[in-house]
Amino acid sequence: MEPMNRQIRLKSRPVGMPAPADFDAVDAPMPAVRDGDVLRRTIYLSLDPYMRGRMSDAPSYAAPVAVGDVMCGHTVSEVVDSRDPTFRPGDLVTGYDGWQQYAASPGKQLRRLDPAAAPISTAIGVLGMPGLTAFVGLVDIGQPKAGETVVVSAACGAVGSIVGQLAKIRGCRAVGIAGSGDKCRSVVEELGFDACVNYKTDDLVPALQAACPSGADIYFENVGGAVLEAVLRVINRGARIPLCGLISEYNATENAAGPNLRPLLVHRAMIKGFIVSDHADRFPAFLEEVGPLVRDKRIKYREHIVEGLDAAPAALIGLFEGRNFGKMLVRVADSGR
Amino acid sequence: MEPMNRQIRLKSRPVGMPAPADFDAVDAPMPAVRDGDVLRRTIYLSLDPYMRGRMSDAPSYAAPVAVGDVMCGHTVSEVVDSRDPTFRPGDLVTGYDGWQQYAASPGKQLRRLDPAAAPISTAIGVLGMPGLTAFVGLVDIGQPKAGETVVVSAACGAVGSIVGQLAKIRGCRAVGIAGSGDKCRSVVEELGFDACVNYKTDDLVPALQAACPSGADIYFENVGGAVLEAVLRVINRGARIPLCGLISEYNATENAAGPNLRPLLVHRAMIKGFIVSDHADRFPAFLEEVGPLVRDKRIKYREHIVEGLDAAPAALIGLFEGRNFGKMLVRVADSGR
Repeated sequence: MEPMNRQIRLKSRPVGMPAPADFDAVDAPMPAVRDGDVLRRTIYLSLDPYMRGRMSDAPSYAAPVAVGDVMCGHTVSEVVDSRDPTFRPGDLVTGYDGWQQYAASPGKQLRRLDPAAAPISTAIGVLGMPGLTAFVGLVDIGQPKAGETVVVSAACGAVGSIVGQLAKIRGCRAVGIAGSGDKCRSVVEELGFDACVNYKTDDLVPALQAACPSGADIYFENVGGAVLEAVLRVINRGARIPLCGLISEYNATENAAGPNLRPLLVHRAMIKGFIVSDHADRFPAFLEEVGPLVRDKRIKYREHIVEGLDAAPAALIGLFEGRNFGKMLVRVADSGR
Repeated sequence: MEPMNRQIRLKSRPVGMPAPADFDAVDAPMPAVRDGDVLRRTIYLSLDPYMRGRMSDAPSYAAPVAVGDVMCGHTVSEVVDSRDPTFRPGDLVTGYDGWQQYAASPGKQLRRLDPAAAPISTAIGVLGMPGLTAFVGLVDIGQPKAGETVVVSAACGAVGSIVGQLAKIRGCRAVGIAGSGDKCRSVVEELGFDACVNYKTDDLVPALQAACPSGADIYFENVGGAVLEAVLRVINRGARIPLCGLISEYNATENAAGPNLRPLLVHRAMIKGFIVSDHADRFPAFLEEVGPLVRDKRIKYREHIVEGLDAAPAALIGLFEGRNFGKMLVRVADSGR
């Protein structure tokens, strides 16, 4: 039997929370390999909150995935065939191949990985897009100064966990917000945050006041909704709020109201939205700083790995329900690495 | 009969819209004049939206006026007695004397005015705090570039009218938002804006889309509420939103919800609150640029003058109801100027 290329395609645009029926698992023919192309087999697929936007045709900063197309996503792969002299079978690469077992395209779209430098999965996690997101939002937009207090929501997630650790390394107090007692314990005990508020059980404003005795100078925002409203009650004069995501609103069928903005005025505070893909020029500086920190285990990361491409739809839905504990990855093929 | 000092004092903290009964008109004794003091008679009193905040004891960026105290406010005055050698009777000065006919304090709290350089009322209008507010918000926070589109709410008011004219001078398209057909006509025909949307009668989003064919790069926000929500629908990538005021919310008895913030994320836009008193260091640069523009009538201004201190409470209430047409001033004494 000829090898096939298993793919997960977008079957229908979800209304509200995506459902398994919005995805289609298909055994497609292997991709054609043209001159200059590199054929690779997916090892890891990254699942990220932004994918909800690509499933929708509401105007956003990037075009949606067309209905019937393969779902998009960052990947780590192994080269299996190459008509590009700079890649050889066995090379490990990272790309944007989406939810499928195989992909072929020109090698210039790939970045080669050194498996001796860091576990290859980190290329789509702490040393990839989520890490760069944390770095750009905290460092470039937040501009933290030693002694300041940095609050971050989704603190146990791929981005939030790095924000707090980078803040600690810069001499800041790091306060997380997460959705379970286990997550809060992990954020404090494993990742070294100073405090963590459980937004599902704590009375948010008093809990934030207790966790931020000097107020909040930076709030790295991943979630929106009631959490943002509460943090605005504890911000300091001149606070900076890098707006990275609003995951609590992504599956809403109506535009939720936002927070009252009077605190921005009273405290001369700033909210600034950003999209990591605008900041690719910061990748070398990011890697230079964070690479050694990860190697030396001064920045820790936790991965939530599900097995097999067919598990991806349920895993993405779990991400929106907060069921992940760390960076959500799909192991598409067992590479032995 | 001895001369008395008529004062308007805060009688009670308003709930919602201030009422005439929240103010008390009192004939107080003349202020004592100590060594180093300057006694002056108020000619003009400025009425401004921020005064609503001072009538409330909700936490804000400045302490409230105490119940029983004279209401605060910027003033233009004539010196009538001076124990400070740098001031003489007849000198014209601007200060922060509040809602009263006379005030005495050290001369260092006063700035001398040259009535030959500009009409003295401009010192609390286009060449005073409202003008500096427009300058700091537009120039320092908005950072306009020629060819961009600048939208400003309360476009017929003391601040908004200057924002649009400064934007035009910088080569931008200026689009106002105001609350009557007369105001919109004045903004376009007298002040030279390119367009003006009537928020009370126009369907806001389509009207803004028509007025901003290339979208909005800067939105100078004075009002909040539904107007802000609508402008967020037409902002461009990288838009800047200097947040100067939220007058539509100042008299709310409950915290209004704010706009959905997804557009900030999608368009990588920024909202930044500011308070003009933090930016006093910019006053010389402001005056150097805007002084000649006013003198040469390249920046026009319109004053809404009410007669007599006792008219101030109703005039301030009118300001919150949008009944002013230009900068709201009280003529406390007729100076013949």
